[in-house]
Amino acid sequence: MYDLIILGAGPAGLAAAAYAINKRLETLVISEDLGGKINYHLTLAGFEGHEIITGADVVEKFKRQLEYLNFAHQIDRATKLVANNRHMTVLTQAGKKFDARAVIIATGASPQRIEVPGEKRLIGRGLSYSSVSHAQLFIDREAALFGCSGRALRSAAELAEIAKRVHLILPDRGEMDSVLGQKLRAHPRVTLYENYELREVRGEDYVESVVVRGKGETSEIPVQGLFVELGLIPNSQLAADLVLTNAAGKIVVDSKCATSRPGIFAAGDVTDVFVEQVLISVGEGAKAALSAYEYLLNQ
Amino acid sequence: MYDLIILGAGPAGLAAAAYAINKRLETLVISEDLGGKINYHLTLAGFEGHEIITGADVVEKFKRQLEYLNFAHQIDRATKLVANNRHMTVLTQAGKKFDARAVIIATGASPQRIEVPGEKRLIGRGLSYSSVSHAQLFIDREAALFGCSGRALRSAAELAEIAKRVHLILPDRGEMDSVLGQKLRAHPRVTLYENYELREVRGEDYVESVVVRGKGETSEIPVQGLFVELGLIPNSQLAADLVLTNAAGKIVVDSKCATSRPGIFAAGDVTDVFVEQVLISVGEGAKAALSAYEYLLNQ
Repeated sequence: MYDLIILGAGPAGLAAAAYAINKRLETLVISEDLGGKINYHLTLAGFEGHEIITGADVVEKFKRQLEYLNFAHQIDRATKLVANNRHMTVLTQAGKKFDARAVIIATGASPQRIEVPGEKRLIGRGLSYSSVSHAQLFIDREAALFGCSGRALRSAAELAEIAKRVHLILPDRGEMDSVLGQKLRAHPRVTLYENYELREVRGEDYVESVVVRGKGETSEIPVQGLFVELGLIPNSQLAADLVLTNAAGKIVVDSKCATSRPGIFAAGDVTDVFVEQVLISVGEGAKAALSAYEYLLNQ
Repeated sequence: MYDLIILGAGPAGLAAAAYAINKRLETLVISEDLGGKINYHLTLAGFEGHEIITGADVVEKFKRQLEYLNFAHQIDRATKLVANNRHMTVLTQAGKKFDARAVIIATGASPQRIEVPGEKRLIGRGLSYSSVSHAQLFIDREAALFGCSGRALRSAAELAEIAKRVHLILPDRGEMDSVLGQKLRAHPRVTLYENYELREVRGEDYVESVVVRGKGETSEIPVQGLFVELGLIPNSQLAADLVLTNAAGKIVVDSKCATSRPGIFAAGDVTDVFVEQVLISVGEGAKAALSAYEYLLNQ
């Protein structure tokens, strides 16, 4: 019986593991890989080469610690989480079964894809699902952004402060009637494509253009990048029957990262907390570990 | 007129500044010093010398960035915060006046002192107000802990797992009737001093003993360290009339670090969020900056 099982080893899961082990909890991390799937950078404007903090540095250290403590980690996929009377059981793809007195869910979220030709091939080659992470690369370049949620419009506004031109492709009106939508409508560096579909992403090695269709016509827009901002799908299926989730499927947590069920905690992109940067995920993971520790002390 | 004024430059304030500047907000930090007053370490048990992550490393990088950007920082003390119709005004001890469209309060908290002879002189020399940060130093050593809140008892329980002996000095019953209190009562390495006062801390260069009084007698207990766990007093006076605070004076924030007043955000120890480790404060600071940025985009 472990004290704590952590599902997922992205920034939140790795930070939770480091803090839990530091608290001398018998800890097991179950994840398919270490470090999560995304590269995170925080580069201060005008600072290139002088002082750069990357969330990646912090996550890398946590990752090396967990690699060193290999007894504390299983490369596997949790397929089922069962809440028993006084403990939790995790079943895995490899057919293993682990018990713990507490669980932290840090399984992250996956970006919603458009599912069009060229998309998969050009991921990381000009196509990104996180403009908040990569907008800075578009100084004096043209980019397309596909999405119409409040978050997508915020990304477009931010991008428009940096890029030479933003082609904002809106599948429907979305949040365009908001204050921010009005600003984007009036913005000299934003071109709107309202009620347009995105049909294809083209480019040899990197994104070179996007093909859109609207008002009965198909056209090709030359761009150096495409941001797909259709939101994130939380990887919360495992716990969906056990804990409270919101309309978007995100696990609802309190300010201590506790879910609606005692003994189950959650951190990072899988939760309803505002997590856009790796150092926020790290903080949330640390918080979840300290909460679990406090919970276990009182058992 | 600044976009954003950040009050305080501990881990939360420094992280907020880094993220705000990265978002190209016109940012000013007002604080008396940079880096806050406490040293923070996270050393993994058994890891000394191999892989150590210190929150201090992260904070140090933020600090150097802000030192470099000296136009973004005023060494001064905010004495008054005024909320106007569409902006905030900060008045300082040096008689200056700064305006901003948004404010982040990250002024931290100060430990409650006992106010006894020897206390001030031995701070950092065996006397600490944060057992959560320094408990690990007490492997095979004897320590006294003064306090009776739930948090104090958790600290005592954690310390008892590490230290040779914990002398738990309880000014009153406090939370001793809880599950955790019962555990401490039965713990073989905990000696209880119920309804004892702490009268003096003694030691030449480092803590060597504490003088306590209870049951009509005064006695001296030899220890290598004293943890004073009387809680933290949030430095929230500046905003007390402007935003909602809880019974302990902590600023109430939502999961986006927003206070009850639009345009005023708060992060770190000054808030009601569970902040015990520097990397949690860093995450909260980052969150506050991104929230302020989002708020300003919608103005």
